[in-house]
Amino acid sequence: MKNLGIIGAGRIGKLHAENTTYHIPDACVKAIADPLMTDEIQRWAKQLGITNCFVDYKEILTDPEIDAVLICSSTDTHAPISLEAIAAGKHVFCEKPVSQSLDEILQVKDALAKNPVKYQVGFNRRFDHNFKAVRTAISQGRIGEPHIVKITSRDPETPPRAYIATCGGLFMDMTIHDFDMLRYLTGSEAADVFVRAANLLDPAFGEFGDVDTAIITITMKNGVMAVIDNSRRAAYGYDQRVEAFGTLGQIATANDTPSTAVISTAHGVCSELPLYFFLERYRDSFVQEMKDFIGAITDDSPVPVNIEDGLQSVVIAMAAGLSLKENRPVALSEITG
Amino acid sequence: MKNLGIIGAGRIGKLHAENTTYHIPDACVKAIADPLMTDEIQRWAKQLGITNCFVDYKEILTDPEIDAVLICSSTDTHAPISLEAIAAGKHVFCEKPVSQSLDEILQVKDALAKNPVKYQVGFNRRFDHNFKAVRTAISQGRIGEPHIVKITSRDPETPPRAYIATCGGLFMDMTIHDFDMLRYLTGSEAADVFVRAANLLDPAFGEFGDVDTAIITITMKNGVMAVIDNSRRAAYGYDQRVEAFGTLGQIATANDTPSTAVISTAHGVCSELPLYFFLERYRDSFVQEMKDFIGAITDDSPVPVNIEDGLQSVVIAMAAGLSLKENRPVALSEITG
Amino acid sequence: MKNLGIIGAGRIGKLHAENTTYHIPDACVKAIADPLMTDEIQRWAKQLGITNCFVDYKEILTDPEIDAVLICSSTDTHAPISLEAIAAGKHVFCEKPVSQSLDEILQVKDALAKNPVKYQVGFNRRFDHNFKAVRTAISQGRIGEPHIVKITSRDPETPPRAYIATCGGLFMDMTIHDFDMLRYLTGSEAADVFVRAANLLDPAFGEFGDVDTAIITITMKNGVMAVIDNSRRAAYGYDQRVEAFGTLGQIATANDTPSTAVISTAHGVCSELPLYFFLERYRDSFVQEMKDFIGAITDDSPVPVNIEDGLQSVVIAMAAGLSLKENRPVALSEITG
Amino acid sequence: MKNLGIIGAGRIGKLHAENTTYHIPDACVKAIADPLMTDEIQRWAKQLGITNCFVDYKEILTDPEIDAVLICSSTDTHAPISLEAIAAGKHVFCEKPVSQSLDEILQVKDALAKNPVKYQVGFNRRFDHNFKAVRTAISQGRIGEPHIVKITSRDPETPPRAYIATCGGLFMDMTIHDFDMLRYLTGSEAADVFVRAANLLDPAFGEFGDVDTAIITITMKNGVMAVIDNSRRAAYGYDQRVEAFGTLGQIATANDTPSTAVISTAHGVCSELPLYFFLERYRDSFVQEMKDFIGAITDDSPVPVNIEDGLQSVVIAMAAGLSLKENRPVALSEITG
Repeated sequence: MKNLGIIGAGRIGKLHAENTTYHIPDACVKAIADPLMTDEIQRWAKQLGITNCFVDYKEILTDPEIDAVLICSSTDTHAPISLEAIAAGKHVFCEKPVSQSLDEILQVKDALAKNPVKYQVGFNRRFDHNFKAVRTAISQGRIGEPHIVKITSRDPETPPRAYIATCGGLFMDMTIHDFDMLRYLTGSEAADVFVRAANLLDPAFGEFGDVDTAIITITMKNGVMAVIDNSRRAAYGYDQRVEAFGTLGQIATANDTPSTAVISTAHGVCSELPLYFFLERYRDSFVQEMKDFIGAITDDSPVPVNIEDGLQSVVIAMAAGLSLKENRPVALSEITG
Repeated sequence: MKNLGIIGAGRIGKLHAENTTYHIPDACVKAIADPLMTDEIQRWAKQLGITNCFVDYKEILTDPEIDAVLICSSTDTHAPISLEAIAAGKHVFCEKPVSQSLDEILQVKDALAKNPVKYQVGFNRRFDHNFKAVRTAISQGRIGEPHIVKITSRDPETPPRAYIATCGGLFMDMTIHDFDMLRYLTGSEAADVFVRAANLLDPAFGEFGDVDTAIITITMKNGVMAVIDNSRRAAYGYDQRVEAFGTLGQIATANDTPSTAVISTAHGVCSELPLYFFLERYRDSFVQEMKDFIGAITDDSPVPVNIEDGLQSVVIAMAAGLSLKENRPVALSEITG
Repeated sequence: MKNLGIIGAGRIGKLHAENTTYHIPDACVKAIADPLMTDEIQRWAKQLGITNCFVDYKEILTDPEIDAVLICSSTDTHAPISLEAIAAGKHVFCEKPVSQSLDEILQVKDALAKNPVKYQVGFNRRFDHNFKAVRTAISQGRIGEPHIVKITSRDPETPPRAYIATCGGLFMDMTIHDFDMLRYLTGSEAADVFVRAANLLDPAFGEFGDVDTAIITITMKNGVMAVIDNSRRAAYGYDQRVEAFGTLGQIATANDTPSTAVISTAHGVCSELPLYFFLERYRDSFVQEMKDFIGAITDDSPVPVNIEDGLQSVVIAMAAGLSLKENRPVALSEITG
Repeated sequence: MKNLGIIGAGRIGKLHAENTTYHIPDACVKAIADPLMTDEIQRWAKQLGITNCFVDYKEILTDPEIDAVLICSSTDTHAPISLEAIAAGKHVFCEKPVSQSLDEILQVKDALAKNPVKYQVGFNRRFDHNFKAVRTAISQGRIGEPHIVKITSRDPETPPRAYIATCGGLFMDMTIHDFDMLRYLTGSEAADVFVRAANLLDPAFGEFGDVDTAIITITMKNGVMAVIDNSRRAAYGYDQRVEAFGTLGQIATANDTPSTAVISTAHGVCSELPLYFFLERYRDSFVQEMKDFIGAITDDSPVPVNIEDGLQSVVIAMAAGLSLKENRPVALSEITG
C-alpha cells in the first residue's frame, strides 16, 4: 500500500484523489494540500477518507509516511515543487507541462539524475483505449512503415478569459498533448515544425497574443510526416481523433460517444455527440495512468511517461511558437541549441 | 443485337426501355404497346428512338423481328400475355408476380416445358450490389453454415388507396421480394411460415382486408431460420437491409445513401437518409437484370430468375396469408398440396 | 452507509462485491457466505476488506447489522433464500431468474406484500448505456408510436456441458434477459409468443432437450410486434443489439468494442470485435444496478426492477417453451391461467 | 444534338466517348483522332457508332459539323490544340492540367477573351456526389464560417516508371485535383503554400526529382487553413476523403465501396475496400461533367469549370514545387508576379 499526498485541490487534483480512492486498491491518499483550503474541500476530503488537509504543501513533503506526491497545482509551481519533492525523496507524478521554461525542466531532469525517484508526467492520453490501439497496431507493424500521422484535437468550448490569460498559449496548453501523442504513436522525435494559426474565435485569444485555430506540420526524425489540427471550439463537442498511414495500411480512431444508438428520422440518421470534454472522454485514462504510476513504484520499474517526455513536448511547443512568429519552419535544434 | 418489345408503358415499362436504350449496347427497343397510348408516351418513345407505338400488344407478338418481350402491364395480365408470348416463340421477361393464381403460374410453367423460350421473372433485387455481396459471401462459405437470416424491408410511404385496393395485399405485392430474397440468399426452399401482422398505419389497408406492418418467420428446408419485417411507411425512408448469421460469422448490409457525407453539429452526428425509393435504390439492379436477360438469350444460357422462382415466391405469399388468417404456422405443402 | 451480505461467492457474487467496494461509497460488504468457502475466497475477501466469511448464509440473515443481502447462489436456492431474507427483514437483491417455478415466484411476491422490503431482480441490462438510450428515446416519443422491436442476443461461446444440464434451457437462462428487455423498452406486457428454435450447435443441448438457436416472435399488449433472435455461439463474439421502429423513425444500437480503431489494409477495412462477454460488455451496468439498489434503500424509493419484472419474464419463458413444444403461438394467459 | 470530336483515344478519351454515347442523349461522338490510330481503336469506335477515325486531329477541327472537341491527348499538347480549336470556333473540353506552363495557359485565356467559346477544364471531382454534398453544405452555411479543410488523396498503386518520367510531378499530376477541390469547396483562392514531402515509396520518383508522399498546408484568402495529404500508394486502395470544419460544425466524407456489406468473423468486423481507382470511384462524375459541358453549350450558360480554374490550380502546383525546393512557405503572388 502506497501513501499519496496531493498538492493542489483543483479539478484535476480532486480527480486523481477520487480515482485513487475508488479504483486503486494498492494506494491511499493520505493528505491533500491547497493554499485555498476551503470548508468545501475539507468536506469532500473527509468523504473520501483523506484525513490530512493542509494549506502548506511542505507538510506533505515532510511526512515520512508519504511515498509519493501528485503535483496538481498551477503550472508555474510544477518545477519548484518537483525539485523540493525529489530532494525529499518522494516519488512524483507531475501534471503537464512540467514547466514553460526549458531551464526549469532541465533542472528537474538534473535533480532526477542525482535522486532517481520515480517521476511521471501527466500525459494521460497515452493511456486512452483508442490511442493505445493505434500505438499497438503501429508497434506490431500492422500498418507497415508509418509515413503520415494526422491528429485532430478540438475542444468543445473556448476557455474563460482568465484561463486564456495564464494558460501559456495554444501550443503549451492544448497542443502539447498532441505533440506528446505524436511522439508516443511514432516512437520518434520531432525534427522540425511549421505552423499556420490564427485567432478566429474569441478575440480574447488575440488580446493575449494567442491563437485558437491551428494546423501544425511536423517532420519526425524517422521520416514520418505529421499534421495536427486544433480548434478551441468545435460546435459538436470534443473532437479527439488520430489517423496513422503506412506502407501496409491505415489505422484511424473515431470519437467515443455516450452510446452507440443511432436514430433515424425524417431529418437524418444521427448518432450521439462525442463525450463532452476531457473528464468524460479520458475518464479511464486518468485511472490507468495513476495505476501505472503506482505500479512503477511498487515494482521499481520505469514510469510510462518520463521527464524526457515532459521535456520534448515543451521543446516542440516552443518551436511551434517560433514558427508562428517568424512564418517559417523551425528545426527543434534551434530551441535546444 | 436483340430486338425487344415492351408491353405496358407505365413506370416500370419506361424504366426498362430507358435502361435498354442507354445501357445495353446489345439490345434495342423496337416497339412499345399500351392500351392507353398517349401523346406523351409517343413523344417519350420517339426521344428514345422507339419507332413503333401500339395500342394492342398483339402487334408486338406478331412482329417476326421481335426477339423478346418485356411484360410490364398490370399483374392480372402477366400470365395470359406470357402464355401468348411463349406460344409466339418470344423470349419473355415478366414483371413480378407472374400471377396471384397458382394455376396460372403452373400453366405458364407447362407452356415453358413445351416451348422452352427464355423466361425471366423481374426479381430485380437479386441484382443489387449489396445483396449480391451477401449471397456471394454465403456461397463462398465465409459465414459458415447459415443459421439465421433477417430481412428488413420498409417502404418510405404508404401507397395511394387505389393501389392498396388492387395490389394483392402486403405479402403478394411487397413481401414477395423478400420471399424471393430469402430463397436467393439461402439457396433453399421455404418449409413453413408464421405471420404476425396488423394494420397500424393507413386505415385503408384494413378496409381492403390488408395489413401494413408484419413480422414473418420462415423455416427453410436447409434448417435456416429466417425473419422478415415489413412496414409500409418508414419515416426515414426506404429501408432495405439483410443480415445473415452462420457458424463462422455474420454478414449485414446497410442502406445506400446519396453520399457518404456525415455532418456533425451541436444537434448530432448525422448521415444522409437512404435513397428515396426503389427507382433510386435499385437503379443499377434494373439495368443488370436486363443485361443478364439479354445475355441469357444471346448465349442461350439459363436465365438468373426463372419460372420456378416466380412460382415459389407466390406459394410463400399464399402460406403467409393463410398463417395470418388462421394464426398458426402454415407448411408450404398445405398450399402446393 | 448500508451494510451488505453476499450469498454465493461465484463469479457474479464476487463481481457485486468488487463493484460495491470500489464504486459505491454508500455501501460496504460486511459478509459473504458460500457453502464451499475456500481459502482462495477468503484471501480475495480479505483484500476487499470483507471480514466475515461464512459457510452458512443464515449467519448473514441473523446479523442485525446487515441491511441488505445479495442472492448470488444457484438458481434453485433463489426463492427459498429470498423468503428467509424477507422474513428476516433484509432488503434483497436477487439474481435472475427468481425461480423457474411460477409458484415459488408468487410466494416471494406474497411475502413482499406482507413484508415490503426492497426486492430487486438482477436484470442488469436495463442499466446499460445503449439500451437506456433506446428506452429514453422511445419514452420521449422520438420514434413516435413503436411498431416493431428487434433484439439480437448471441453468446460468444456455447457453455460447458454441466452448465447446459442445469441452466433451465435457452429461454429461462438466456432469452429471459431479452424478454425483460422487451418489457423494459416497450413499457408493455407480452400477449403471446411464437418460437422457431433448433439444436444446430453443440449436440449437448439436444441431449438435455434444449435448443441453441432461436427466433422468437412476441406480440405485446400495446400492439408492438417484436422478434428476438438468439444463438449460443457467434464466431465474432458477444452480439447484443436492439432496434426499435415506430411511426416517426427508428433507433438502433451497435455492439460496444474495446476501441473505435478501424484498420484498413489490403484485406479489408476492419474494426474490432465486440467486447468479449457479459462481464466486459455489461461492466458498468452491474455497477449501476447496485448503485440504484442502494439508492432505493437509502431514499426508500421503488426499486428499478421489481418482483413483477421477475415474474413476467419467467412467464414469457414458459410460454416460449410451450410454443416450441407444440409448434403454435401461445398466449401468456395460458401460463398464468 | 451536339456533335463531338475526341482528340486522343487513350483511357480517358475512350471513357468520354462511351459516357457520351451511352449516357448523354443530347450529344453524339462523330469523330475520334489519335496519332496511333490502331485497328483495336477502330473496332472499338465502330461498336460505339463512331464513324470517323482520324490520325490527324486537324480533320476534326476543320469539320464544320463538329460543335465541340474533347482534348484528351498528352498534357503537352493541351494548350496548342486548345488554341487551334478556339481559333476554329469549336467549344472545348480540355483534360487537366491545361498546361504545365503558365504562359501557355494565359495564351489560352487570352484566346478565349477574343473567341468566347465554351471552355471547360476536366476537374471531374467537382461532380462527385460526396464532394458536391460537402460543397453544398458549406454554401448553405451548415457548418458556419469554415476554418479548416482537410483533403486526403491517396492512389492505390504507384504508376509505371514511364508515367513518373513524364507526368509533371506529384503536385502537377495528382495534387492538382486537390488544389482545385480546395478552391471548389471553399469558394476562395489560395494565398500561400507550405510543403513537406519525400520519396518514401518507389525510388523511381526520386530519380526524376519527384516525391510520392506529401503534406501540404495552404492558407486561403478567406482565412481557411487547409491541409492536403497525398500518397502514391495506399495498400487498402484509393483513398479520397475531405473534411471541412467551421464555426457551426463539421462535414466529412468516407470512401465509396462496392457494397455496404460488413462481415463479422473471428478475425474482425470488416467492410469492403474502397472502389479501386478513379475510373470506378469517379465513374458518375465523368458522366456528369460531360452532361454539364453539353448543357452549357446548349443553354449558352457558363461552364462549371473554366480556364481560370485551370490556371489557378496550376499556380498552386507551382508554388508547392517552389516551397518543396526552398523549404519555406511560398506566397502565390511569387508565382503570378
